[in-house]
Amino acid sequence: METYPITIGKITRHVPVVETLPGVHIPLVEIMGDVELVQAAAEALVKHLPPETDTLLTLETSPIVLAHVMSAISGKPYVVVRRKRRPYMQDPIIQEVESLTLGVTETLWLDSRMAEKLLGQNVALVFDVVSSGGTMMALEKVAKKAGANVVARLAAFHQGNSKLPITFLSEIPILQTA
Amino acid sequence: METYPITIGKITRHVPVVETLPGVHIPLVEIMGDVELVQAAAEALVKHLPPETDTLLTLETSPIVLAHVMSAISGKPYVVVRRKRRPYMQDPIIQEVESLTLGVTETLWLDSRMAEKLLGQNVALVFDVVSSGGTMMALEKVAKKAGANVVARLAAFHQGNSKLPITFLSEIPILQTA
Repeated sequence: METYPITIGKITRHVPVVETLPGVHIPLVEIMGDVELVQAAAEALVKHLPPETDTLLTLETSPIVLAHVMSAISGKPYVVVRRKRRPYMQDPIIQEVESLTLGVTETLWLDSRMAEKLLGQNVALVFDVVSSGGTMMALEKVAKKAGANVVARLAAFHQGNSKLPITFLSEIPILQTA
Repeated sequence: METYPITIGKITRHVPVVETLPGVHIPLVEIMGDVELVQAAAEALVKHLPPETDTLLTLETSPIVLAHVMSAISGKPYVVVRRKRRPYMQDPIIQEVESLTLGVTETLWLDSRMAEKLLGQNVALVFDVVSSGGTMMALEKVAKKAGANVVARLAAFHQGNSKLPITFLSEIPILQTA
């Protein structure tokens, strides 16, 4: 199996390279299940939190553990936007997102009880991997609908071309083959 | 808003009570976003891990942070079963589950690369809330398909009647009203 080395701080992982489109090969980063890598990324990213940050905002699924550990380190609370409507939700904020990863339109959901926690808050968006930035833009819209002010866009890894100014720790290439 | 007190260790939260069916009211537990509650639950649950446990097994979404922190405390790795097919998956294990929470049939997915980590392993299933046990039974089937041996079924909270022997920390009532 072809692998590619990715590094955060002192942690290096040789991750599998997968073919997502014919001729397009991408190192597959999965931080879930990797306590050491999440810890290293969280410790590095909290240093990039602006002092005025009140709350971390992330979304299902893989960046949740990163936001959780960043919250434990920084003492700042975090909120998770869902990718599926849950039966308990009341008057949720709904936001469409076109995800290149899945190649389909997805919908983000935030229960009004969670949205209340964002009202008037300075929030930092937390991602594991940002590629096109489309999901991050959708998350930013959710934050604004909830009355929050986005003060930082943080990601452990950056891959490809995003349209947003993002603070990230490590660049992952998109590998083209003939 | 009506609330109900739930307690794990020294942590008590007054969670909202939601009406899921006419006359059926349920305290709504959400451990995601609550670093203290997750830490308390993880510390208590790792004490119930059988010594022969090799790996923790959980699934999307809310119990992931619990499994992550239990992994950090115990040093035992964890694997996350997905509720949606991801484009990178190769020969995934597929398992239907009938979820009472959502009232619809769901499907569990585990990429073969993750399934390999379970082969021949003694696994402990990790949940935040177990109600009917249907989801836990489906997760157990995933474990068996991957060649693992289930040695423990752990949950932070238990609610209602499950058909499985489960080790849990706190009972949450289902509140009936006239």
